[in-house]
Amino acid sequence: MLELEERILRDGRVLEGDVLQVGSFLNQQIDTSFTIKMAREVHSLFSGSSVTKVLTIEASGIAFGFAVASLFGVPLLFAKKSKSLNVDGTVLSARIHSFTHGNDYQATVSAEYLSSEDRVLIVDDFLANGEALRGLIKIVDDAGASVVGAAIEIEKGFQGGGDRLRREGIRVESLAIIESMSESGITFRR
Amino acid sequence: MLELEERILRDGRVLEGDVLQVGSFLNQQIDTSFTIKMAREVHSLFSGSSVTKVLTIEASGIAFGFAVASLFGVPLLFAKKSKSLNVDGTVLSARIHSFTHGNDYQATVSAEYLSSEDRVLIVDDFLANGEALRGLIKIVDDAGASVVGAAIEIEKGFQGGGDRLRREGIRVESLAIIESMSESGITFRR
Repeated sequence: MLELEERILRDGRVLEGDVLQVGSFLNQQIDTSFTIKMAREVHSLFSGSSVTKVLTIEASGIAFGFAVASLFGVPLLFAKKSKSLNVDGTVLSARIHSFTHGNDYQATVSAEYLSSEDRVLIVDDFLANGEALRGLIKIVDDAGASVVGAAIEIEKGFQGGGDRLRREGIRVESLAIIESMSESGITFRR
Repeated sequence: MLELEERILRDGRVLEGDVLQVGSFLNQQIDTSFTIKMAREVHSLFSGSSVTKVLTIEASGIAFGFAVASLFGVPLLFAKKSKSLNVDGTVLSARIHSFTHGNDYQATVSAEYLSSEDRVLIVDDFLANGEALRGLIKIVDDAGASVVGAAIEIEKGFQGGGDRLRREGIRVESLAIIESMSESGITFRR
């Protein structure tokens, strides 16, 4: 999505440790109308997939996930990063390694919110090594539901997570794929 | 909002420790069209307030915050619960006690996203003791911006946080206010 690439070039900042700072419009301060525009793109890409539920993980995927789920007219479900007091009953879970924070965490979803009938579109803001996405796919698999694909705002193509998942047959659609980035510039996959 | 009260009675469950479980439609699996309906109510309540930004805190306020912010046509900003690698630069922060988790955490927002020109509507899913709301108000005050009020999905009126803030002159609008709840039933404030 050309408009997203232009926005990344204009407002993004490359920080140490392969971090792309896009907090001004994408994952801390969220440009709502631009997010809805990106969600429309996802809706059009997966319009034939009979999506019944959108799944994301807290926290920065929630706004985009909400926008996508509203366009499909389906619920948004988000995995929590730790089991808290208000997730009771049986949970589906996956251990995920966080590239950003350098640690592992448990992603959990109440089992009652996913059934074998569900056709799930997984949504997230970033895809780098693909760990979060793999965890969410495991959760959907454990529920006996189907993954129709994954929709990502920004993929760090140079970290290879997206391509590994594509080779395994997962449909991964990223609105912008970064091939390389450094303080001197960002290049996108064409 | 009568429809929210009815939904709480139909789908909510009261758990031990004054926890109201509404994960099936409000804060883990999110009913997107109902959330937009609630956001419309908030938009109409604050339509004269010249809101320039909506502020919430991760994670369960984000979906509702996004819906509200889109209707106002302004950005959604969310406070993070710990300083992570991709929040750089100067931050505004507040220490908040969590009723649900029984611990304290630090809420942070990059200082660059709030200016003294901003008129901020604070949005959250729950209001109980008012600790999170006080933390967010402190963050807005520290930025020199104005709080136009707070919009909450469900207020636990019996915990008093909302009324204490109202007595201090903060405009707090809650779509449902629970006066009492137990496993045998829930009553709302009229």
